Amino acid sequence: MDAVGHSNTGSPAAAVGGRSEVEIRMAPETVPRRVPLPPPQSTCSKLKRTMKEIFFSDDPFRRFHGKPLRTKWILGAQFLFPILDWGPAYNFSLFKSDIIAGITIASLAIPQGISYAGLANLPPIIGLYSSFVPPLVYTVLGSSKDLAVGPVSITSLIMGSMLRQVANPAKELDLFLRLAFTSTFFAGLFQAALGIFRLGFIIDYLSKATLVGFMAGAGIIVSLQQLKGLLGIVHFSKQMALVPVMSSVFHETHEWSWQTVLMGSCFLGILLLTRQISTRRPKLFWVSAGAPLASVILSTLLVYLFKAQNHGISIIGQLQRGLNSPSWDKLLFHGLYLATTVKVGIVTGIISLAEGVAVGRTFAAMKGYKVDGNKEMMAIGIMNIIGSCTSCYITTGSFSRSAVNHNAGGKTAMSNIVMSITVMVTLLFLMPLFVYTPNVVLAAIIITAVIGLIDINAAYHIWMMDKMDFLVCICAFFGVIFISVEEGLAIAVVLSILRILLQITRPKMVIQGNIPGTDIYRNLHYYKEATRVPGFLILEVEAPINFANVTNVNERISRWIEEEKEKHLCLQFLILDLSSVSATDTSGISFFMELKKLTEKEGLQLAFVNPVGEIMEKLQRANDLYNLFGPEYFYLTTGEAILSLSSLSKESRQCSKGTNGIYNL
Amino acid sequence: MDAVGHSNTGSPAAAVGGRSEVEIRMAPETVPRRVPLPPPQSTCSKLKRTMKEIFFSDDPFRRFHGKPLRTKWILGAQFLFPILDWGPAYNFSLFKSDIIAGITIASLAIPQGISYAGLANLPPIIGLYSSFVPPLVYTVLGSSKDLAVGPVSITSLIMGSMLRQVANPAKELDLFLRLAFTSTFFAGLFQAALGIFRLGFIIDYLSKATLVGFMAGAGIIVSLQQLKGLLGIVHFSKQMALVPVMSSVFHETHEWSWQTVLMGSCFLGILLLTRQISTRRPKLFWVSAGAPLASVILSTLLVYLFKAQNHGISIIGQLQRGLNSPSWDKLLFHGLYLATTVKVGIVTGIISLAEGVAVGRTFAAMKGYKVDGNKEMMAIGIMNIIGSCTSCYITTGSFSRSAVNHNAGGKTAMSNIVMSITVMVTLLFLMPLFVYTPNVVLAAIIITAVIGLIDINAAYHIWMMDKMDFLVCICAFFGVIFISVEEGLAIAVVLSILRILLQITRPKMVIQGNIPGTDIYRNLHYYKEATRVPGFLILEVEAPINFANVTNVNERISRWIEEEKEKHLCLQFLILDLSSVSATDTSGISFFMELKKLTEKEGLQLAFVNPVGEIMEKLQRANDLYNLFGPEYFYLTTGEAILSLSSLSKESRQCSKGTNGIYNL
Repeated sequence: MDAVGHSNTGSPAAAVGGRSEVEIRMAPETVPRRVPLPPPQSTCSKLKRTMKEIFFSDDPFRRFHGKPLRTKWILGAQFLFPILDWGPAYNFSLFKSDIIAGITIASLAIPQGISYAGLANLPPIIGLYSSFVPPLVYTVLGSSKDLAVGPVSITSLIMGSMLRQVANPAKELDLFLRLAFTSTFFAGLFQAALGIFRLGFIIDYLSKATLVGFMAGAGIIVSLQQLKGLLGIVHFSKQMALVPVMSSVFHETHEWSWQTVLMGSCFLGILLLTRQISTRRPKLFWVSAGAPLASVILSTLLVYLFKAQNHGISIIGQLQRGLNSPSWDKLLFHGLYLATTVKVGIVTGIISLAEGVAVGRTFAAMKGYKVDGNKEMMAIGIMNIIGSCTSCYITTGSFSRSAVNHNAGGKTAMSNIVMSITVMVTLLFLMPLFVYTPNVVLAAIIITAVIGLIDINAAYHIWMMDKMDFLVCICAFFGVIFISVEEGLAIAVVLSILRILLQITRPKMVIQGNIPGTDIYRNLHYYKEATRVPGFLILEVEAPINFANVTNVNERISRWIEEEKEKHLCLQFLILDLSSVSATDTSGISFFMELKKLTEKEGLQLAFVNPVGEIMEKLQRANDLYNLFGPEYFYLTTGEAILSLSSLSKESRQCSKGTNGIYNL
Repeated sequence: MDAVGHSNTGSPAAAVGGRSEVEIRMAPETVPRRVPLPPPQSTCSKLKRTMKEIFFSDDPFRRFHGKPLRTKWILGAQFLFPILDWGPAYNFSLFKSDIIAGITIASLAIPQGISYAGLANLPPIIGLYSSFVPPLVYTVLGSSKDLAVGPVSITSLIMGSMLRQVANPAKELDLFLRLAFTSTFFAGLFQAALGIFRLGFIIDYLSKATLVGFMAGAGIIVSLQQLKGLLGIVHFSKQMALVPVMSSVFHETHEWSWQTVLMGSCFLGILLLTRQISTRRPKLFWVSAGAPLASVILSTLLVYLFKAQNHGISIIGQLQRGLNSPSWDKLLFHGLYLATTVKVGIVTGIISLAEGVAVGRTFAAMKGYKVDGNKEMMAIGIMNIIGSCTSCYITTGSFSRSAVNHNAGGKTAMSNIVMSITVMVTLLFLMPLFVYTPNVVLAAIIITAVIGLIDINAAYHIWMMDKMDFLVCICAFFGVIFISVEEGLAIAVVLSILRILLQITRPKMVIQGNIPGTDIYRNLHYYKEATRVPGFLILEVEAPINFANVTNVNERISRWIEEEKEKHLCLQFLILDLSSVSATDTSGISFFMELKKLTEKEGLQLAFVNPVGEIMEKLQRANDLYNLFGPEYFYLTTGEAILSLSSLSKESRQCSKGTNGIYNL
């Protein structure tokens, strides 16, 4: 920034009209410009700058600079509690919008809460508890205006399936509950830690392609689990993968109950139809938003009137009335279960963060405000820690409910409070009404919700854009379906990382040629008009040169020199364009030293073009020890290097003329 | 290569003297050159090209091209058996050099073989067996002229310590032997597979920094183990790490035998002295090369004369005479031990490859010939497979013996045959002579050998060059010393990989400025003379733009635009220099689309400079779906982009004048 002083007064003229000066400065007679060494810097200040770029690249404290102390305190409080930021400006017209949106999402959140709790093998009431406290916490801490928080399907599924491996929810419900709260606690701790230590970039490793495949796989797995409720099967597989579930379904055909199947298919049909309507006409969003609650009410009435619970239709049964009881005394830090709860916490924590932050960012981008990823993680983390102490299991921002919130005209996080109060009223007064709610309708609600996770359009888009991304997507999908939810995810993440590593291990290298009539040098294979400069081999390496690729880069350069020598007898110069080499390490420095030896052995003159500061600095340090590269090795542009090298070696011109003769044959 | 046709006849002139043409073409009136789309290519041919670059980047079959079939057969045979390449030209003068070198390395290999077998908890004879068969195999298959193969200290140590976790060599020697042969078999299989599938780059992930730290740590661990022999302790710790070994040493002080300590320190002193002499005067290499055998002979004589075995000095004892017996029937593929032997095989396989290939490449570079890494892996792999069937444990190229081989004037792999025959003679006739050899002298030989692994100069060099590499080095060192050999190595490799990932996750981004009087744009903070172009924000991203960094890049660009807007009211254009963005993925494409939205919202005009073919192609595919970026978004150089954008928007000039006014205040 300091460079922007009065010194650049003449710059626009130079850039726009000052060609003639270029002409003069670049004439062959003048000495080419030298590549400077970067300004000296201590290891400590360099470390500080690096750390800042890694952890504070978004510079969250920028707005504090130069403010009086009192303002700083206010800004700090607003930073920690965003409600202080938007709260004072809150008014009645905003509240009118929020109250409608809040009641709409509550009508969706109540049946979904009950259903998702079942997905996690938890009592239905826990799902309602989790739709009451966490939204209140999020309203105070969260910076998104559209996020509707509560339990979501995927983390419910994962928590349920992972915890079932160590405790049986049917027989040891109390232990299972304690493990669920403890896992939620660890998830919150992990999330908050990621936010506090500004490691939020970890969730970036769940790329779009990974998530598309993972979500679709999880949607199918969740739907398959609902076959239990839809068909009325009692003895169902305890495993999640496709094969055991399907074999379980067709093994227990004698348990299928036609009454359940009939009721289930009717309500599933209705729910899918309302979903279709709302998808086609976004204005009718309330049709699909209200349908789950309407289905619950209707089906409860039907069961009550026909006493269907005596005819093979299983019902929820008595639910306890009242608000969340404290559960901090239920957290279980026992060595036997510690490893499991920590693992479940980390897995569900990461996935719920990925969903919550992605949803928050999507709507923020749509409405043109900003969501600070790290702050959002702290908010979600603290929300889950408090949740784990108040009988809630893991919660995050839900995509479906946030979309409804947005469509229903929700303006601020206040709609979460409205939803929360509606859930509270339900918990206090309406619980007895759910006694006759049939489980089959909950299964239908879940299927309708998770079917939206299968995004074939996105997968097609990925296929069109990038085949390797599609492979990652497909691996996540089949991994989730055939192996397990966690391993499918792990496979996709490892593949994505391997792809990045491969780009470094086998860096792109291009041979450059001159674009005739200009001073521009570009990839010969891409720019068809580009032509070779006789006597010169101009290579560009498009990755950091480090331990992972020095052998490869070295081998390819030797190969190219050999090939060149076989074809043109007159190769004299090797120019290495380092514009894209953003970093190097000790192996890279050894590579440069070996390259010098190689070119000397081959009788070539070596030159480097446009090295970045870091490389100049490290080469300078190597020079201090071995004195290898004088300033005559470094040039600002390929054009200058060619000019200068050609004029240095008189034979080169003769040589290039000779070569031209050969070329013309 | 095809582009090198007759069309480039005019190119040198254009490059060297054709400035005036540049001037004309780049005048503001002319239309700027367009960035072309890369030549169309099917997914299949692209995949083929990518695979070739990944697996056959050194193009090993190049020399087969266009040769008659018979020559191809001969070349193929020479490719598989390099001995056919150098064998026919072998002559007596070469043999004279090789016989001297061979006998010299044999005199080192015999005592080292016996000692290293002890390091692996194997009977001494196995060490000699392993110095007999593998060198013969390597002579036929290997492409290095200097590598002296046989057992080496680090892999002996690792195999011994890892296998000891599942079998007790003192009580279950037969099982232990079978596990060692099986592990060697798996190591060979793994090595050969890496070579055949051309995955040799995996060993590149053991960077120089990792190896320096690892070797030093292993050297210390091995030396500490020798305290058992040097002090004559009987009940020694079974663990390898520093703390348990030292506590064991000082716990068992009553077992220390002064005779052993005396003899040990004398011989250790002599050996270290000869090492010093040879290091200072390379011509006297034979002093340190012959010293171990001389020590063995001298100490054996001393023990025999003074009957020292009755005075607390432990001796090797009776060794069986005769050559290797077949051991393929001893390979144990039992489920119980399979996991261990496979794991030991992979760990020792990778480490022995790293040592063997590195040594081979070092001497090849010194003498100016080439060693094909993948072929070398196949050679070492097959050598170990055959070894595992002939009572040998894992072998590779040894650094110390190869250096002696080189110094002694060895010219071809024939010196390995000479060494092998010398070992054979020893096995057949001289075994009874080792009965009285004291174990303490073997400990001294090992310490002298491994002390060379601690390379303080290299560590200092790494510290000077790259602090992060030094961290990797130090982590490997302390990991090996305090945790375990495998885990120390794993920590260092993971750290190195994280560093690469970090470079992608937090890519370098620079603000560019114009170098006055030229058409060159460079990093403002590095080139102090560079000045901002008013109205323009010119950014360069120095990494592939992909899922791991899109959020970060997006955040930083928004931040910069905000900062700019705060300072200069007149920001009108955002130029993104994509020269260094070598690849992208679906997330990257979404990033470009979002960037367009962002700049539109901020009222900026966006332009991309010098995108590589892959990015143009993917953006084109996105365009087919969404029609976002017309050709007016892409420019070949920053200069052209600025020219063209400035002339497009007339206000921009006024604006920049206005800004200049502000600047001048």
